[in-house]
Amino acid sequence: NLAVLRTLVSRGAGLDIVSGGELYKALKVGCPPKRIVYASVGKTPEEIKEAIKHNILFFNVESTAELEMIDSIAGSLRKRVSVAIRINPDISIKTHIYIMTGKSESKFGIGFNTAESIFKTPGRFRNLRIQGIHIHIGSQITEPAPFIGAIKRILNFIDSAGISIEWLNIGGGLGIVYSDEKPQTAAQFAKKILPYFKGRRFKLILEPGRFIAGNSGILVTQVLYIKDNPSGKRFAIVDAGMNDLIRPALYGAYHEILPVKRCTIYDIRNTTEGSPELRRGTKYDIVGPICESGDFLAQNRKLPGLKSGDLLAVMGAGAYGFTMASNYNSRPRTAEIMVVKGKAHIVKKAETYGDLVRGEIIPKGL
Amino acid sequence: NLAVLRTLVSRGAGLDIVSGGELYKALKVGCPPKRIVYASVGKTPEEIKEAIKHNILFFNVESTAELEMIDSIAGSLRKRVSVAIRINPDISIKTHIYIMTGKSESKFGIGFNTAESIFKTPGRFRNLRIQGIHIHIGSQITEPAPFIGAIKRILNFIDSAGISIEWLNIGGGLGIVYSDEKPQTAAQFAKKILPYFKGRRFKLILEPGRFIAGNSGILVTQVLYIKDNPSGKRFAIVDAGMNDLIRPALYGAYHEILPVKRCTIYDIRNTTEGSPELRRGTKYDIVGPICESGDFLAQNRKLPGLKSGDLLAVMGAGAYGFTMASNYNSRPRTAEIMVVKGKAHIVKKAETYGDLVRGEIIPKGL
Repeated sequence: NLAVLRTLVSRGAGLDIVSGGELYKALKVGCPPKRIVYASVGKTPEEIKEAIKHNILFFNVESTAELEMIDSIAGSLRKRVSVAIRINPDISIKTHIYIMTGKSESKFGIGFNTAESIFKTPGRFRNLRIQGIHIHIGSQITEPAPFIGAIKRILNFIDSAGISIEWLNIGGGLGIVYSDEKPQTAAQFAKKILPYFKGRRFKLILEPGRFIAGNSGILVTQVLYIKDNPSGKRFAIVDAGMNDLIRPALYGAYHEILPVKRCTIYDIRNTTEGSPELRRGTKYDIVGPICESGDFLAQNRKLPGLKSGDLLAVMGAGAYGFTMASNYNSRPRTAEIMVVKGKAHIVKKAETYGDLVRGEIIPKGL
Repeated sequence: NLAVLRTLVSRGAGLDIVSGGELYKALKVGCPPKRIVYASVGKTPEEIKEAIKHNILFFNVESTAELEMIDSIAGSLRKRVSVAIRINPDISIKTHIYIMTGKSESKFGIGFNTAESIFKTPGRFRNLRIQGIHIHIGSQITEPAPFIGAIKRILNFIDSAGISIEWLNIGGGLGIVYSDEKPQTAAQFAKKILPYFKGRRFKLILEPGRFIAGNSGILVTQVLYIKDNPSGKRFAIVDAGMNDLIRPALYGAYHEILPVKRCTIYDIRNTTEGSPELRRGTKYDIVGPICESGDFLAQNRKLPGLKSGDLLAVMGAGAYGFTMASNYNSRPRTAEIMVVKGKAHIVKKAETYGDLVRGEIIPKGL
């Protein structure tokens, strides 16, 4: 969302982009190109060209074939282009297999041996400056240990290969609160990792996207029907579905769900266990209107008695929420509201039915 | 897609809708309202009102609460509204748990006992005509047995409860070819089920959406990079991702992948096993450009030597393909092309970067 990006950029953040569309948005909110880095295993030639023309800081490169592609495009544009090599540190973490990105079987990154040969034969890519290293070991990691493990491997690689770099991009992955996680704070994380960089002269880059956005956003939905079925299950059928928030269906993700009217009186982290009202509650499956069983927001969740019309807040929906939303079942995507100093602003209008068929053409005679 | 809907409607099909957006599309392609039925566990009051105003054939109703809602809205509009009761026949089928919709733990349908009491006390809903029964036991079912099992239960229910109906809507679920399935043909299915309806006076309705659309559509994608990683895995990184086709990530679904240039010379069903060229091939993971490990179209798939620029056809992408597409990673959705008698028509234009930020507003002073 442009308003979110503008908020971050105007406060000094750079942007990690993964597509031409993200480059477009970054430039649209006025992000200086020298604060943009471009990561993706599948950059198209057109996207690379566009990013080079706008003089972004560097590309995180994922394969030898991509180095050759960027080198060739840079040559044709008569530019010298900075790149960082994304190294796969072969670190296993405890998270969903879909967001575990640092294992050697992953599509991401380059092995240490190949990386060393790239750094040691820079003449192979005449239009590139190989100036950085990028790692990204996965997402929703609440402990410092996996980060430290990866950082140690990279520093060891730098030293033993005798490589000099300008940037170390340690990626993202800092976990947030979805249920009862007690994730590290930014300060705790900094305290743990900074000692490893003592005396190093490169600049450090981080990509804490979920850490910033995840707990900053909620999805508000309204209860349409309460339904009991013969098996004894009780459903609260709500007006948001997997097209609005696909994380529960896609990753089996847990999102805390709170009745909107009671939101302010309990500490979010302690609600489920702590509130006598919730402890007296009934178990509900909170499900959407979409025509498949995967369309649920929560299962077997204890909540105080719900009725048609009640509003529910699905917590932690600020990351991988709207960005993954679809028009499945011909459902227009919802509005996005930003609260700035207590005032609500519509920062994206809700889609209309007309938006659903935009660009569609019925051939004559069908 | 409107062109697809128009094709079906102009040849006599009715439309099964599940949202206000689908009602909008059905009317837009000129579907007569008396050929529209409306199913969904989560119809909003606005959607119900709109459908009543347009005089659709009937609603498939999923709960007592929904009956009350439709009755009340019908009353306020001074209309009498036809409904079918969606009965959950408690049938278990062999399919992905997310598309198994006929078990009693499911959010769908009403149990036999509740259904009977609804049929026997029609006076409870003064503005409704309770005239039909709807079942839908799941998707991608290749055998007739589960359908027959459900039909028998429903007929038994009708007879033992002494109920008279005008419509029996037996839903969808007819399986198609994704890999080596040998699904029943329409004729085989008809031959199996029609004898059960001998002497019955109600009309039969079916919803064979995937059966019509699934194998009629392919997703064409281009190889960007070939990448070998240290674990010995070989990746073909292509320009389509999970935002274009989420079925592999969401359901672990298998889609046949064929090199476009060789598509015409092999029988699709026998390609993987039959072609000497494919048997000599290499194993690839076909992965997209999106920044997570769940972004794959196929894993460990034997294909003839691929190189950058090659086009691949992802088969069976005509159902639950574009309809579930998102803009994840700020990727514009692709164009849709319809081939009519050998001629290609763009029936939906590709989205632009501008489309990605449509309706977004940056508040002043951010």
